[in-house]
Amino acid sequence: MKNFITIDDLPNWEDTLASMQELKANPTAYSHIGQGKTIGLIFFNPSLRTRLSTQKAARLLGFEVMVMNFSNEAWAIEYEDGTSMEGIRSEHVREAAQVMSQYCDMIAIRAFASLTDKSADEAEIVLRKFAAFASIPVINMESATAHPLQALADALTLTELQLPKRPKVVLTWAPHPKALPHAVPNSFVRMMGQMDADFCIANPEGYDLNPEITAGVEIIHDQEAALAGADIVYAKNWCSYSDYGKIIRKDKAWMLTPEKMKRTQNAKFMHCLPIRRNVVVADGVLDHPNSMVIEQANNRTFSAMSILKLLSENG
Amino acid sequence: MKNFITIDDLPNWEDTLASMQELKANPTAYSHIGQGKTIGLIFFNPSLRTRLSTQKAARLLGFEVMVMNFSNEAWAIEYEDGTSMEGIRSEHVREAAQVMSQYCDMIAIRAFASLTDKSADEAEIVLRKFAAFASIPVINMESATAHPLQALADALTLTELQLPKRPKVVLTWAPHPKALPHAVPNSFVRMMGQMDADFCIANPEGYDLNPEITAGVEIIHDQEAALAGADIVYAKNWCSYSDYGKIIRKDKAWMLTPEKMKRTQNAKFMHCLPIRRNVVVADGVLDHPNSMVIEQANNRTFSAMSILKLLSENG
Amino acid sequence: MKNFITIDDLPNWEDTLASMQELKANPTAYSHIGQGKTIGLIFFNPSLRTRLSTQKAARLLGFEVMVMNFSNEAWAIEYEDGTSMEGIRSEHVREAAQVMSQYCDMIAIRAFASLTDKSADEAEIVLRKFAAFASIPVINMESATAHPLQALADALTLTELQLPKRPKVVLTWAPHPKALPHAVPNSFVRMMGQMDADFCIANPEGYDLNPEITAGVEIIHDQEAALAGADIVYAKNWCSYSDYGKIIRKDKAWMLTPEKMKRTQNAKFMHCLPIRRNVVVADGVLDHPNSMVIEQANNRTFSAMSILKLLSENG
Repeated sequence: MKNFITIDDLPNWEDTLASMQELKANPTAYSHIGQGKTIGLIFFNPSLRTRLSTQKAARLLGFEVMVMNFSNEAWAIEYEDGTSMEGIRSEHVREAAQVMSQYCDMIAIRAFASLTDKSADEAEIVLRKFAAFASIPVINMESATAHPLQALADALTLTELQLPKRPKVVLTWAPHPKALPHAVPNSFVRMMGQMDADFCIANPEGYDLNPEITAGVEIIHDQEAALAGADIVYAKNWCSYSDYGKIIRKDKAWMLTPEKMKRTQNAKFMHCLPIRRNVVVADGVLDHPNSMVIEQANNRTFSAMSILKLLSENG
Repeated sequence: MKNFITIDDLPNWEDTLASMQELKANPTAYSHIGQGKTIGLIFFNPSLRTRLSTQKAARLLGFEVMVMNFSNEAWAIEYEDGTSMEGIRSEHVREAAQVMSQYCDMIAIRAFASLTDKSADEAEIVLRKFAAFASIPVINMESATAHPLQALADALTLTELQLPKRPKVVLTWAPHPKALPHAVPNSFVRMMGQMDADFCIANPEGYDLNPEITAGVEIIHDQEAALAGADIVYAKNWCSYSDYGKIIRKDKAWMLTPEKMKRTQNAKFMHCLPIRRNVVVADGVLDHPNSMVIEQANNRTFSAMSILKLLSENG
Repeated sequence: MKNFITIDDLPNWEDTLASMQELKANPTAYSHIGQGKTIGLIFFNPSLRTRLSTQKAARLLGFEVMVMNFSNEAWAIEYEDGTSMEGIRSEHVREAAQVMSQYCDMIAIRAFASLTDKSADEAEIVLRKFAAFASIPVINMESATAHPLQALADALTLTELQLPKRPKVVLTWAPHPKALPHAVPNSFVRMMGQMDADFCIANPEGYDLNPEITAGVEIIHDQEAALAGADIVYAKNWCSYSDYGKIIRKDKAWMLTPEKMKRTQNAKFMHCLPIRRNVVVADGVLDHPNSMVIEQANNRTFSAMSILKLLSENG
């Protein structure tokens, strides 16, 4: 594994799960791995969990960390080849990626979807171009179409629960006032492909995710039917994929409520955060002991550690 | 002491003074205290002294430090309970505080007064909500109504001066073009309550501080009378408390000048900085050997160290 | 050497070259130099290479690093003396510099030219005032008229090339859509004054650099003539110095192309980055094996290390 851009990059799923569990049990056992090494964290977008957990993970492994907010601390980056750079973009990714490779041993990048240019988003321009021109590993801290560190943390959270042998896991769409990207649900779906579970996605008509990613997964357009008997309910908003970037409905019919949770098998509730209370989910669900959202956030440290460790061992 | 939000949270005043003196005499003696621990510094507002001195203090004690500018690096935070989060605020303090508690062992927060909503400012919404939902200690790096790390640094500065047994200390209001909060004078007044001094406050009519905080302290509306025989003059602007957030006067009659300082007992001059020269105070006062402002700034390192050390020992 | 503000501050050119070479050969050999010391990096402007390479250099030498973006994290700074500070500037450089000196052992500052006020730019107000009032060394990370850490990195790059005994080095102006400062060419010219080379500057009429800096250097207004037989071509845009801050021409006649490079002696290509592709230089030059731009960026780490080491030894 040269880079970690999607869940599918992982060479061995069971090893990754075991590594996260080991690192959580003993977070300082590998504090020598990053000695004398530096990781650069590049943010093109806001971040709370990712920013802090990735720094924490890197320091626990002994890495030096340099954080940069590219949107206001560096130069605007050009990604297109052959263009005459007369506009506002003053540095090409070819140079930026090679230059960072001189100072860092790894780069982690957050670059959200535009939600306006579907083909650019799907091409993962920022992550893929940095990966193409960097001579060091590139790690995805949420890109246009994937958030694999979140999905790994979610996988660790699932393994820590007392669940039936083949639990029923429901990923349900929920309302939101803004158009949100598909990165989190995409990576959750890919991750669930590695788990032994009865997995389905519930979303309104018009909100089906990219069919290439959901191939083989049952999609249900009736939320209450989908929730019946669930052991895990993972809520998340996303904008339309077919009518790319659009919000089709803003009503609260799909908001997750304590009443709806009664249809489940006393299901655990999951969400990647940040979450809008009483829009995506009612307070009563989030404040219930079955809510796993804080432990999911905690597990971000160990998913980041497992990837940094894996990429270090390659080198 | 679970959190350090005001001067009144301190369990023992004499111990705190002694701790600051010990840490200043030997700043590296406790470099093991923070080993393996992380402090998160959250800024909602600009900062020079607080940002650097708190980082410096934490590193001297061996802490890892993660700095975040919440206003542009994270998500806008909602503080109200039960609200339907459909506006610009995308993360609730309940989650933000719990999440940070996963990655950090302490959080220090700077969140200035609005100066428009008196009851929200007095409720110290940001600090109190973070403290309520965090599972780790919360430290005030200047909140709506208090700046206790500054007051501790000021106390250390006072103990280092050759002063009469019961010095006369005058906190005097001074002019400023902008409406400034009451945090610094409030904490200075609370701190002076612990010191054996002849303390009074001088301010124009309409500028009396919160009477709950100044209870028992003499307030004089004649600056020149107040300054007579002073050993210490602490200048600071603040906006009106009774006509909350307003600037009542902008004239320079209350600017501190060398002429006015002649009325004192060769008084030392103090201010928390930043200071507007020739508005709050004339150059001649600030550039005089009696000005303590740089030593006050230096002492910020040791006030922060004493609080980090105290909160570590509790844990 | 108390401060490092221009190339001319260096006490011994040969020692500096040797120090950079030694540090590059063994970057961790002096990791004790900064132990217990802190460097503050202050940015008033964007930065990628400087931000990362200076942090990297400081950490390799064992320094603690505190980074501040003064434009949005601190207070607006007043530089003029005797002024009545009633405007937007709330902290005077006299206090800011002294305060930073309490928390740091060195300060490095980036403060670009205004390009509107020639005399203020030439007075190097920001760097010189910080240096005047700080009690610790001040390092230039690109000021209004000089970028000496870049010039040192360029010098190291030159010494690493297989060049003729007295190589022909051409600094050529190139087009750019924005008005750029003279800092990089100025420092490159001063640096070349230390090297045994046949050095000339090529630029269009109206673009001659400050004659005090270029005294004794041949200036040629015909780019193709200048390039003939060159061993090194250093491209860089700058705005007019005589018609200060102005862009006189935007055509691409002076863009560096593979065709033009054929006139040289298989010259190496240099540029400080960031660079606008197909404006300053055609892709074919930048992507050619003779391009040294990434190694120049790499060498920034060692130029910064050599200065930090030199200033530490003074102390």
